[in-house]
Amino acid sequence: MKAEIITVGTEILLGDIVNTNSQYLAKELADLGVEVYYQGTVGDNEDRLLQSIEESLNRSDMVITTGGLGPTKDDLTKETAAKFFNQELVLDEKSWNKIEIYFNKLGKIPTENNKKQAYFPKDAIILENNNGTAPGAILRKGKKIIIVLPGPPREMKPMFEESVKPYLKSLTTEILESKTLRFYGIGESSLEEEIIDIIKEQSNPTVAPYAKDMEVTLRITAKATSKEEAINLINPVVHKIQDKVGKYIYSDDDISLEDTVAKILVSKNLTIGVAESCTGGMVSSNLINYPGISSVFMEGCVTYSNEAKMKSLGVKKETLDKFGAVSEETAKEMAEGIAKRHNTNIGLSTTGIAGPEGGSEEKPVGLVYLGIYINGKTMVKRYVFNGNRQQIRLRATKTILNDLRLELINI
Amino acid sequence: MKAEIITVGTEILLGDIVNTNSQYLAKELADLGVEVYYQGTVGDNEDRLLQSIEESLNRSDMVITTGGLGPTKDDLTKETAAKFFNQELVLDEKSWNKIEIYFNKLGKIPTENNKKQAYFPKDAIILENNNGTAPGAILRKGKKIIIVLPGPPREMKPMFEESVKPYLKSLTTEILESKTLRFYGIGESSLEEEIIDIIKEQSNPTVAPYAKDMEVTLRITAKATSKEEAINLINPVVHKIQDKVGKYIYSDDDISLEDTVAKILVSKNLTIGVAESCTGGMVSSNLINYPGISSVFMEGCVTYSNEAKMKSLGVKKETLDKFGAVSEETAKEMAEGIAKRHNTNIGLSTTGIAGPEGGSEEKPVGLVYLGIYINGKTMVKRYVFNGNRQQIRLRATKTILNDLRLELINI
Repeated sequence: MKAEIITVGTEILLGDIVNTNSQYLAKELADLGVEVYYQGTVGDNEDRLLQSIEESLNRSDMVITTGGLGPTKDDLTKETAAKFFNQELVLDEKSWNKIEIYFNKLGKIPTENNKKQAYFPKDAIILENNNGTAPGAILRKGKKIIIVLPGPPREMKPMFEESVKPYLKSLTTEILESKTLRFYGIGESSLEEEIIDIIKEQSNPTVAPYAKDMEVTLRITAKATSKEEAINLINPVVHKIQDKVGKYIYSDDDISLEDTVAKILVSKNLTIGVAESCTGGMVSSNLINYPGISSVFMEGCVTYSNEAKMKSLGVKKETLDKFGAVSEETAKEMAEGIAKRHNTNIGLSTTGIAGPEGGSEEKPVGLVYLGIYINGKTMVKRYVFNGNRQQIRLRATKTILNDLRLELINI
Repeated sequence: MKAEIITVGTEILLGDIVNTNSQYLAKELADLGVEVYYQGTVGDNEDRLLQSIEESLNRSDMVITTGGLGPTKDDLTKETAAKFFNQELVLDEKSWNKIEIYFNKLGKIPTENNKKQAYFPKDAIILENNNGTAPGAILRKGKKIIIVLPGPPREMKPMFEESVKPYLKSLTTEILESKTLRFYGIGESSLEEEIIDIIKEQSNPTVAPYAKDMEVTLRITAKATSKEEAINLINPVVHKIQDKVGKYIYSDDDISLEDTVAKILVSKNLTIGVAESCTGGMVSSNLINYPGISSVFMEGCVTYSNEAKMKSLGVKKETLDKFGAVSEETAKEMAEGIAKRHNTNIGLSTTGIAGPEGGSEEKPVGLVYLGIYINGKTMVKRYVFNGNRQQIRLRATKTILNDLRLELINI
């Protein structure tokens, strides 16, 4: 099957935002075995969108659009798709009720123009939106299909996952099954070099590396006629990869680094406290995104000032005076201090220079000390991270989570 | 002038990388007053690229491509553009010399296929590449222009800046200038309804709303022959918008909500402490992303457990027993407790049910109490947010920052 992606929106056309929707859809479609030869972007303009849809459906079986499902006059993707198929839009009461409920929960009443979002061609498959007001839809005429999805990624992605993927799978008897290995501590090109033989000798399953948010992921995808057959193709390849670069793999289940760590903490019932300076709450916030964490997460302290480091963590004044706030010694006392505070098994600490100011030759921007106290022992590691302020803070956060994960393996 | 962008490359088509080139070029072209109505992506395939170029030049005066200028057989963008214009490629000795020097510098000798990169149509303007081996080129036939640029952003961007921008400027006298207003606390559709008259009556400047990351932005863009003239067109429209919906505008300078709040705190020298439960460090982390914050940010406490709420913030056991951790009373004591701890002007608190478990009819998932203590007075607001765990936490974080911002206006 051949498909094309059309992203609709003036903000993409003007370059205000990066078009991550096309990448997401392209990757997902590739994984499903759907061929994509063209991607396009147009603004919120009926004539140009009509022309794009026509060109695409002349070449392909299916068009997937994102954007232009909002409540305003500008939003006309669904209307244009229906017009192309010469289908009339009618109010779908169920969708309208859902929108009303969504607004009521916010203590608001939908405006009349929100009603537009509940209109669909009679025979369309309506795709529920559990993260916003705009439902998506699958429109069909003969063998041609137009799937309209909302623009915001946090609405579009779950909708694709929950509704579009099963639909596309139902159109073919071949199934694609994939397994994702997640890596930390190795770059994409180094990883590819290490396993280039494995990548090259494979055609089914395929092995594809990609990098995202400072992590590297490897996806092993098999085509087969049953899930079992696919898994039997995938597993031997996974084992080969584990043999070569297993020490960098933190998850073979497509779970985030922070959830992986949080899960271990909860399952081993290890209590934890976190003392953050440069990361400023990111480490705590990452761990707390795991729903079950409350049983072991005792407290996080964002001790950005020296006063707070002393008062809340018991860091000694002499230590701060002699070695400075960004030092191995301070990191050690911070980790021990937060652990002592609630008598936890584990205490984490971060202290560093996130920039853009405040660096020196001896202590450059990007220098971060990460402290880990576990059951009576404390270790501190020194890192120098690249990037802007936000990136340095994020790298420090991911790194301490990964370092902790490695320590927890041995407990 | 109308232009279209075509990015060439299988890695974009398959979703292996995000297409940042299109965004960069779109933004630059918009700033230059060049209108872009279409963007497209095709793989390294002559037929499909030829077709795309033809469609684009039927609609527009100019096509800018990125990618496909490398030394391999796969790389065929320049060759295809020349074929479209029916122009013959000839070796450009100067470019070939430059490639040889480039390789020699790396201690290498160029291979014969690198020579391909030095072939151009006789009348093309060759664009030097100071960051790689592939020169770009401007091809012309009659009034139609094709500009071919390399794919890697670190080669493409400097080439655009150094060579393409001056060329495009020489083609036009018009400039585009825009101003961005950022809103919080009003949805995209409500905002549009409020100012629909202003949007409708404008053609220069134009007024365009869009939503991103739970916030709404309005861009006012003017076409003029000078920056001053453009600003004189923009300002009266900004004032009209401020008159109608000024209370929702938090920035007229395209600065994020968290940086806006942090900036006010620093400029007014108001010290702050943050006590977080459900947001788990996000509020602190957002504030700490502002580089100058250290002078006023005293401490953040992630008091996820009741024990920590009592120990670090002095929340009373009776309060927790009687009203629960997620209550107005607890939020109040948390905000006051963190302020008292370091005797700060301001204390913030968050406590809520982020889900997915833990909700009840009385206290549903999404219920969050946000407490703000300022100089002796405490107020607590109750919210029910939609979304998944991460979204509820993010909404609570943005909302308390905006509520604080509104309070700070009056100080």
